[in-house]
Amino acid sequence: MSALSVIIVAGGRGLRMGHEVPKQFLNIGRRPVLMHTIEKFYSYDSAISVVLVLPSDQFPYWKALCRKHNFLLSHKLVEGGPTRYNSVKNGLAHIGDSDLVGIHDGVRPFVSNQTIERCYLVAQSHGAAIPVLEVVESIRKVEGDRSWMKPRSAYRTVQTPQVFKSSILKNAYDLPFNPDFTDDASVVEAAGYDITLVEGNRENIKITSPFDLVVADAMIREE
Amino acid sequence: MSALSVIIVAGGRGLRMGHEVPKQFLNIGRRPVLMHTIEKFYSYDSAISVVLVLPSDQFPYWKALCRKHNFLLSHKLVEGGPTRYNSVKNGLAHIGDSDLVGIHDGVRPFVSNQTIERCYLVAQSHGAAIPVLEVVESIRKVEGDRSWMKPRSAYRTVQTPQVFKSSILKNAYDLPFNPDFTDDASVVEAAGYDITLVEGNRENIKITSPFDLVVADAMIREE
Repeated sequence: MSALSVIIVAGGRGLRMGHEVPKQFLNIGRRPVLMHTIEKFYSYDSAISVVLVLPSDQFPYWKALCRKHNFLLSHKLVEGGPTRYNSVKNGLAHIGDSDLVGIHDGVRPFVSNQTIERCYLVAQSHGAAIPVLEVVESIRKVEGDRSWMKPRSAYRTVQTPQVFKSSILKNAYDLPFNPDFTDDASVVEAAGYDITLVEGNRENIKITSPFDLVVADAMIREE
Repeated sequence: MSALSVIIVAGGRGLRMGHEVPKQFLNIGRRPVLMHTIEKFYSYDSAISVVLVLPSDQFPYWKALCRKHNFLLSHKLVEGGPTRYNSVKNGLAHIGDSDLVGIHDGVRPFVSNQTIERCYLVAQSHGAAIPVLEVVESIRKVEGDRSWMKPRSAYRTVQTPQVFKSSILKNAYDLPFNPDFTDDASVVEAAGYDITLVEGNRENIKITSPFDLVVADAMIREE
């Protein structure tokens, strides 16, 4: 089996939540979001190398949480940057000689084992794989005051982990920063590589609002 | 105040749920989804006229549920058609002389009072209003084997109620059926009217999967 690694990015300062605590540290069930997220990757591959990218002023808080919850899963702590692009780039400098590198949002603790597997397997064979979902609701495009219906079957929403051969990802992140880089696939695409879409899982939500936290608590009870 | 009505469309046969019972009849909290939905419109306007469109073979089941739950809110039961377009058209024949007509998915019980209010008020002033949300995740357009990143800020997802001046809606539904009609706004647009977008609410999900049902149960506990 190839050597796998994952960069888990948790830059959230939690300002959108109305909480003091950044959302990656909020408890769902009995433990912080981020611990659930890290566990999902160890469940897939117990030999995976985990790099956790956090704002450096949150290191002490995270370390205290790890002690409190007796969280023993190994991970390398790396300082985040001012943008996601910078954070991933910092993480990339610490992945060693992995063959495949995944990049995952710290606040997506409900990624399924099957989604992780699909991404790593397809990245192995095709170079770059990202999980997507069909769009459930009607969608419209807006431009100023006007808007138009769009055929929802032609669109997909994008989740993480976004997984790449490490050589591809490193080449891509040599590009200078561009504000059009909204996710890792967009960086890799800008470097000229093709992205393969695989199926995500509906539960793999990004916890960014109080509503998401209610949903997350319900999901944990189901697990 | 104008005379308001709402056509609540519940055509679901529940095949996607892995349940025997169509999803509009499943309990969340202690009562069927559809009862929560109807209540939301009466909470907004106790004089609203409610038309409930159901497949006719579900009439006896629904009536039995109303007796069982002592559900007394007045509503006119109308037979659904083979498509949503037909169901709405059937409902429209029973709205009497309302000034404004909303069309709402039966399986959206978490529409907020504010969303309902925004839709009816803006439809009153502008003719046609639909609730939308900003897109939270990255989106891609797919075409065959290829896909492209799209700027998510240029897109909105569409919810219900979609509310219209009744004269506009009746004119629009004189158009012959077209498979491009994916929601009521698309019918009204095809008839040459402008649609105004208003803000929806994040909780206003469409219950279509087992995951949505878990979310719905959590939301009911919050309420």
